[in-house]
Amino acid sequence: MQFADANFSKSSLLLAVRRYSSAVSDMEQTILLPSLLRDVPSDDVWDGEEAEETCEDLYTNYMMLKNIRNTVESGLLHLGDRKIEDSVVLHQTLEPLLDTDPQVLFCFHLRGLFSVMNSLTKKSQSLTEKYMDLIGVTK
Amino acid sequence: MQFADANFSKSSLLLAVRRYSSAVSDMEQTILLPSLLRDVPSDDVWDGEEAEETCEDLYTNYMMLKNIRNTVESGLLHLGDRKIEDSVVLHQTLEPLLDTDPQVLFCFHLRGLFSVMNSLTKKSQSLTEKYMDLIGVTK
Repeated sequence: MQFADANFSKSSLLLAVRRYSSAVSDMEQTILLPSLLRDVPSDDVWDGEEAEETCEDLYTNYMMLKNIRNTVESGLLHLGDRKIEDSVVLHQTLEPLLDTDPQVLFCFHLRGLFSVMNSLTKKSQSLTEKYMDLIGVTK
Repeated sequence: MQFADANFSKSSLLLAVRRYSSAVSDMEQTILLPSLLRDVPSDDVWDGEEAEETCEDLYTNYMMLKNIRNTVESGLLHLGDRKIEDSVVLHQTLEPLLDTDPQVLFCFHLRGLFSVMNSLTKKSQSLTEKYMDLIGVTK
């Protein structure tokens, strides 16, 4: 995932959030039968493992993208416990390295959130296109 | 800096941002002569070094807290270049460890931003109190 974005200074986290919400809304409006995505393997690679190994299908991705959008819009973390626990473990691993100037830490997390938002927007758009391919519709 | 917050599930990033903005507004309204903060050593410890070693005074902290508030409110990163560069270096150092599930990464940065916001709110309140001590006013 790219951290640095050439256009970062011209963009804002708020815009990134809006673009993501809009991409997920478009995805929801297009994917009228999400169950069609079940058992369709995802070609995304999470955790450095092939999707086949992690048993993730497009339906799992669809639900994840919707869950994150709900969190973004409500501002509350009510994702699956496992993901939150994993993020706590990640923080604990990195803790000694994160003991830095708060302004640097602020930039780090703000840029990180911006970057992950952009990546998720692209994933939502890609999933929408894959669904259209599945049902034989071309844009 | 504490990452986990017992009340996190009941709070939201938006509330944390509002609390921070409000603490900085209060700080600005109270500190009518920011120049009085010059050369007053900060007892905060950044980067694991004593403030005395980093030559930071309360005025530097005051400006930092205002800068971050402006970034938070505008959503744009226009902080000093050095801080942004430092955050890029921090990301590059952590990059191999951040190659993870995007949902976990999202939680990590969202919680991180929430935590840093809470910490900066406390710093703003503490700075306001220190100024009042300096001018001999008790709340």
